[in-house]
Amino acid sequence: MYNILEIIEKKSKGLELTKAEIDYAVMGYVNGDIPDYQMSALLMAIYLKGMTDKETTDLTDVMLHSGEVLDLGFDSVDKHSTGGVGDKTTIVLAPLMAALDVKVAKMSGRGLGHTGGTIDKLEAINGFQTDISLDDVKKQVEDIGVAIVSQMGNLCPADKKLYALRDVTGTVASIPLIASSIMSKKLASGASKIIIDLKVGKGALMTNLEDAKELARVMVNIGHLNGKETICVLTNMDEPLGNAVGNSLEVLEAIETLKGNGPKDLNELVINLGSLMLSLEKNMPVEEAIEYVENALKNGLGYEKLVEMVKYQHGDIDNIPVSAKKFDIKAYQSGYIKSIDALKIGELARKLGAGRFTKDDVIDPTVGFVLHKKVGDKVLKDDVLITAYYNEKDLPLADIFDCFEYSDEEVAKPTLIYEIIKKETL
Amino acid sequence: MYNILEIIEKKSKGLELTKAEIDYAVMGYVNGDIPDYQMSALLMAIYLKGMTDKETTDLTDVMLHSGEVLDLGFDSVDKHSTGGVGDKTTIVLAPLMAALDVKVAKMSGRGLGHTGGTIDKLEAINGFQTDISLDDVKKQVEDIGVAIVSQMGNLCPADKKLYALRDVTGTVASIPLIASSIMSKKLASGASKIIIDLKVGKGALMTNLEDAKELARVMVNIGHLNGKETICVLTNMDEPLGNAVGNSLEVLEAIETLKGNGPKDLNELVINLGSLMLSLEKNMPVEEAIEYVENALKNGLGYEKLVEMVKYQHGDIDNIPVSAKKFDIKAYQSGYIKSIDALKIGELARKLGAGRFTKDDVIDPTVGFVLHKKVGDKVLKDDVLITAYYNEKDLPLADIFDCFEYSDEEVAKPTLIYEIIKKETL
Repeated sequence: MYNILEIIEKKSKGLELTKAEIDYAVMGYVNGDIPDYQMSALLMAIYLKGMTDKETTDLTDVMLHSGEVLDLGFDSVDKHSTGGVGDKTTIVLAPLMAALDVKVAKMSGRGLGHTGGTIDKLEAINGFQTDISLDDVKKQVEDIGVAIVSQMGNLCPADKKLYALRDVTGTVASIPLIASSIMSKKLASGASKIIIDLKVGKGALMTNLEDAKELARVMVNIGHLNGKETICVLTNMDEPLGNAVGNSLEVLEAIETLKGNGPKDLNELVINLGSLMLSLEKNMPVEEAIEYVENALKNGLGYEKLVEMVKYQHGDIDNIPVSAKKFDIKAYQSGYIKSIDALKIGELARKLGAGRFTKDDVIDPTVGFVLHKKVGDKVLKDDVLITAYYNEKDLPLADIFDCFEYSDEEVAKPTLIYEIIKKETL
Repeated sequence: MYNILEIIEKKSKGLELTKAEIDYAVMGYVNGDIPDYQMSALLMAIYLKGMTDKETTDLTDVMLHSGEVLDLGFDSVDKHSTGGVGDKTTIVLAPLMAALDVKVAKMSGRGLGHTGGTIDKLEAINGFQTDISLDDVKKQVEDIGVAIVSQMGNLCPADKKLYALRDVTGTVASIPLIASSIMSKKLASGASKIIIDLKVGKGALMTNLEDAKELARVMVNIGHLNGKETICVLTNMDEPLGNAVGNSLEVLEAIETLKGNGPKDLNELVINLGSLMLSLEKNMPVEEAIEYVENALKNGLGYEKLVEMVKYQHGDIDNIPVSAKKFDIKAYQSGYIKSIDALKIGELARKLGAGRFTKDDVIDPTVGFVLHKKVGDKVLKDDVLITAYYNEKDLPLADIFDCFEYSDEEVAKPTLIYEIIKKETL
């Protein structure tokens, strides 16, 4: 039969594993027959030697079938973000799509490292419930067209266990491992179509565009091999998305965006992703879909849907607390903003209490930052750059200044959307 | 301070670790602060990305100082074999050197995988004791000049723990990890000079000469950086060494060799390694040392010393049991022996009970093989090729036949000694 040592040795030589070997290793690990230390050696070998498309597809399939595979009973589009700083896009897009008659049953995650999580953000709304049974999710989507929840059944337990091990063994940033982790969960969660917002830049897991394109290619390929149309949108995550970073601050910004007052970059992303989702689901030209999305933002239809969803999930949208203290940090020089380090801003927000360092940490939903200047903006000395919202934790002022780089010369606004990768463009 | 994740990531990028980082990782692992699964990820990264000479030297030093470093109180030469099939050289050389006034306090190991271990072999002698305190070892060497034991103090616990993990994670065959493992133990065991018989070929850990040369270079370098003259002799391990494979059979062959009746290849190796040891220790020309060694073999001085050692360690040299059953396997064709697969012979002996598959297996010291033909020998159909000694386990006849390759044309006797690598030749 199979032998885990032989499988490790095969992969460390850079050879292709068979599906049976991958299944033996992964399911053996899930069942406890294969210990952590052998799986981590195999993960490091995969990290350093890579996987062929076939292996990545097989690994996805093994993880997909390690748990429940949902059938929602209706067509829906899943929009997934690979994680960034200030990324509240799901909170805007999900109700906006529902307002345009695209059903969204969205399973979201909690914050990871310096990046926030949609579930943590929504829980900043007093009373908001995210732990809802699958039957209740189905009923909610039938009733109002949208639900955002933290879990729907026991999906991909193999991915959960492998991800926890990758996190502590330096094997996270591997294209085949990331692709199979994301796609197994997306395929298990029952959506008929998948749109992935693949963040690229300082504040993202993927820091360079070439690697991100390769990851997108692999994911689109896996989606289609599993009969689900999959599109990857590569977007800029060098500076935070929008202005707000921190849980309740981001919910407030999402609300403003749904009311038509969103920051330029967030608005642009919502229109792009939203029109893609709409055109996919309704089979209409993207140009037409853009008009629908822009209208829904202008006339507040999306906002009304958000109010409806929050109420359905027992939240009080009029009760979104912010921190007790705030402090305006001013520019110490004039010039143009050359860069705002999303990774550093994310880490500082985490230190203020917006994120966790260990999985038992309790988040302070009310703290964070609001940017008043973004890359390309002109600033004069003493203009407010950023407002910090904080409670008991000290403000690391020097570190906040360090997030900003200035230039004496004009700086172009950064490109937000790099590329859209779909089956036809592979 | 240091962080194991950062150390894993640094090594997985192929960067050089500092001594402080290596110390943190290894001693943290020994102390239980760093779990198996993180160390195995680091080991796989080292296995695939390698280590610089400086890192290997630093790793050796950290493991060396993880336990006791012995001071024997006298000059001695340690001869170490990297492990092969039929390798009973230590049982011949240790008493032979003692007979020539070179002190030998030899710590040996048990069998590993398909290769045998000197301690298992000596324990085939009824009553022979190998678990002796350091003080008793010193007294024995003062009294009779030689001791072969299984342990002397708590040497290199870090190496023990790392080796056990490497063994189950596919990270054994790494030059820096092998070099640091061997050299830390040799440096800790108190010998003033070190001779390493580095086996190369089908039945050895190192299967190609280029890798073996690199391993030799690294080990000689580490020895000298630690102020101990170190010489590596690269020798052939494509076919078994000598004729006997199996514990008691090998002791019997060692006795015959000490009586001047050894097989040609074993005899040649004993003379080469022995004269090197003698010339090193007594500072005499190798040609002169060869004469001394050859004489000691002819006149039985080495055999007398073995008898003395076995008696001192409570063994009964007249009581070396062999298996109840034996079977002569005959050639099914005429021709010349082109190859005898040492790895396969070693595995088959292990299956007959001569070695262990799990560390709790109990060895049958009486089983194994005796070759009657070696590579280059002419055979006629029905000549006895090999005799199998066995008890309750079935004889896998077809597999035994499979170990031999024939040629119609004459086959040259293989080279036994490829190269001698010392400081001056680096």
